[in-house]
Amino acid sequence: MWGDAVARTRDLTITEVRLTPILIADPPLLNTQGVHQPYTPRLIVEVATADGTTGVGETYGDTKYLDLARPFANKLVGRQVSDLNGLFTVADEVAVDASRVSDQVDVGGLRGVQTADKLRLSVLSAFEVACLDALGKALGLPVHALLGGKVRDAVEYSAYLFYKWADHPEGVAGEKDDWGAAVDPAGVVEQARRFTERHGFTSFKLKGGVFPPDEEIAAVRALAEAFPGHPLRLDPNGAWSVETSLKVAEELRDVLEYLEDPTLGTPGMAEVAAATDVPLATNMCVTTFAEIKEAFTRNAVQVVLSDHHYWGGLRNTQQLAAICRTFGVGVSMHSNTHLGISLAAMTHVAATVPDLHHACDSHYPWQSEDVLTDRLTFTDGRITVPDTPGLGVELDRDRLQFLHQRWQDDDGTLRDRDDEAAMRAAHPDWTTPQVPRW
Amino acid sequence: MWGDAVARTRDLTITEVRLTPILIADPPLLNTQGVHQPYTPRLIVEVATADGTTGVGETYGDTKYLDLARPFANKLVGRQVSDLNGLFTVADEVAVDASRVSDQVDVGGLRGVQTADKLRLSVLSAFEVACLDALGKALGLPVHALLGGKVRDAVEYSAYLFYKWADHPEGVAGEKDDWGAAVDPAGVVEQARRFTERHGFTSFKLKGGVFPPDEEIAAVRALAEAFPGHPLRLDPNGAWSVETSLKVAEELRDVLEYLEDPTLGTPGMAEVAAATDVPLATNMCVTTFAEIKEAFTRNAVQVVLSDHHYWGGLRNTQQLAAICRTFGVGVSMHSNTHLGISLAAMTHVAATVPDLHHACDSHYPWQSEDVLTDRLTFTDGRITVPDTPGLGVELDRDRLQFLHQRWQDDDGTLRDRDDEAAMRAAHPDWTTPQVPRW
Repeated sequence: MWGDAVARTRDLTITEVRLTPILIADPPLLNTQGVHQPYTPRLIVEVATADGTTGVGETYGDTKYLDLARPFANKLVGRQVSDLNGLFTVADEVAVDASRVSDQVDVGGLRGVQTADKLRLSVLSAFEVACLDALGKALGLPVHALLGGKVRDAVEYSAYLFYKWADHPEGVAGEKDDWGAAVDPAGVVEQARRFTERHGFTSFKLKGGVFPPDEEIAAVRALAEAFPGHPLRLDPNGAWSVETSLKVAEELRDVLEYLEDPTLGTPGMAEVAAATDVPLATNMCVTTFAEIKEAFTRNAVQVVLSDHHYWGGLRNTQQLAAICRTFGVGVSMHSNTHLGISLAAMTHVAATVPDLHHACDSHYPWQSEDVLTDRLTFTDGRITVPDTPGLGVELDRDRLQFLHQRWQDDDGTLRDRDDEAAMRAAHPDWTTPQVPRW
Repeated sequence: MWGDAVARTRDLTITEVRLTPILIADPPLLNTQGVHQPYTPRLIVEVATADGTTGVGETYGDTKYLDLARPFANKLVGRQVSDLNGLFTVADEVAVDASRVSDQVDVGGLRGVQTADKLRLSVLSAFEVACLDALGKALGLPVHALLGGKVRDAVEYSAYLFYKWADHPEGVAGEKDDWGAAVDPAGVVEQARRFTERHGFTSFKLKGGVFPPDEEIAAVRALAEAFPGHPLRLDPNGAWSVETSLKVAEELRDVLEYLEDPTLGTPGMAEVAAATDVPLATNMCVTTFAEIKEAFTRNAVQVVLSDHHYWGGLRNTQQLAAICRTFGVGVSMHSNTHLGISLAAMTHVAATVPDLHHACDSHYPWQSEDVLTDRLTFTDGRITVPDTPGLGVELDRDRLQFLHQRWQDDDGTLRDRDDEAAMRAAHPDWTTPQVPRW
């Protein structure tokens, strides 16, 4: 019993990396900057090792990410798929086109500051997930086991409610969806009902910042009446002043689980946080490790919504969770438009975070298209944590090729997400509103 | 190339856990509390899995650790050796005898506050390392690869200088060492020379708090003259007042890499830090995650010396390093008396920490005894990071049994480290000095 079995050795050297940009259908979801385009870019990353194992990852697919992903991929060949810390060394070596980033709020992506480092981490995350998937498959272990093991068997998600139109603007190509319009409290409640019927979600987040605050307050009130006692959240993406934020917080304090990014920037968030007992969550104020010290020291946020894409992968997400725990700040997960690969990745890492006390966000129910042979399914608002090796997903190559062909066929107008431009298809005079908008 | 090889599945269920308390020889090293006993307790942990893989870990061996390790070990059987996050759940379930801990400075161990949680983590760490060792051997990967991969091929250690007597007090059993006495500047320099000759160390830490500060300042000055330009550290284990700390910092500011725990507690450390530009390091003021927020917010420490034993293992050490990085605090490694298993564990985790800018501490050169078939060796003050599966160490079972027999034969007087009692063998009136001592 105490003698060692001989360990098998497999050659886990990365021999090939494949990058496949795609365009996926997206419904006409509204936010404070505009509306989602009918198709949005994603990048699918595959790594293959010498012993014949493959792994997949996904991340943002806009041009600035692709430009960075190509040299990154080239540097991976010849490295060990297990060398996850080495990915950060590689990231440091890849030059970012400075014209593509600035340390300003990214009004297109609603994802906080956009620095060169953050861009690198967003690209890195797809390679990290692909390496973890391959490593897990090579070793016969699920990704959560590579992250120290799951502490729960299912991960809870919340219904991500959007104000939306029934269709994309006239004359704009796009896929038809069956969700209908939601532009008032009744429409929002109807959408929430459909979410519960289809996926069993029991908590609800409304993407706000679209209509004047009173209308959004009314929508949340209508949700509270329709779903009494269920956790509710409102996220205007920083569209409000400190004064408006406090007014909304006061009016909804009895029903809100938290208020998400009511206003922009750490000073403003700190001012709001100091004057209300409604917890503030963020995926805009704190989106990089560099922003943590000031925000936490000033008690500007009570819940950080991690996004493994821009925080630099699943292991960095675990580190973020450890930092939050140490400073008494809650943690949950943010979502942008994503496919099943990233949902699986989010589920694996969320399963390993001990103090995950809020349901995670996911856009996935809005995505009618995927690159997997089998879509992931929500049961009672939860995703069961896969115990099969790797992420537990399988690429549908025909589907991947189809979505890639759509990207190939695009003349460039859809290859960079631009909610402002999409809005102009309906409202030619539209420009991204100044913040605070209200 | 893009089809997956079938992953082998191995049964990594823990089927047996072995605990072996031992007593190992320790030289008469002096500190502010007293002197090391001639033998000191350690606990060797072994886990075995269903597929015949084994792993080893070590931690403190005092009675209060053993009392906790036994129920902990029982709960591990049947769990997966890869379920490292689950170890924290197990730790939560193991009851600590409250009479054995208090939230006070542990004057015996010089290791900061001693809470029930910290005691649990100290025990957990040995199981975590043993599980990582077994998992690595089962998967054919070195422990550093299970931690994301090494970012350096060798880890630098510093010479850990002690004031010491040539021999243990008359009438006290013990092993003879060949280091001689060091009770003045010349003796300290001579000891340092021997460290460089034997192990190639290029930085030096002096354990202080033993003699009045002026004598220790003179010793550090003598080291600076003998080894010009080499990094030097002085660690009085909190024996000084704020005033004395600042006096020493001022007198040695041109030669100190950092001053370690000059005074006790975050308020005192913060006061010292605010008034000197000599960085302050600690393994007493910040030894748990619960102490970080206040200490970092008040800028009380500039370098945290992690000890994977009481921080709860190698993965927690990585999390600590991430927190330090995020808050602009340096990180390095603390050491208490330990054997080669822990030195290997320290080396693996240190190899994965990107911003390790200070040589780590290690008592290992003082330990003439070990439980390994081959001792780890320092070359130019460094340990080469092993790339063999697991920790890369092998137990010498005869040696383990010999050291366990010594523990069995002890009447109980050496089973709990007590530097104060050991000092009384030479000075019958000795009691642990009040702090600040100077």
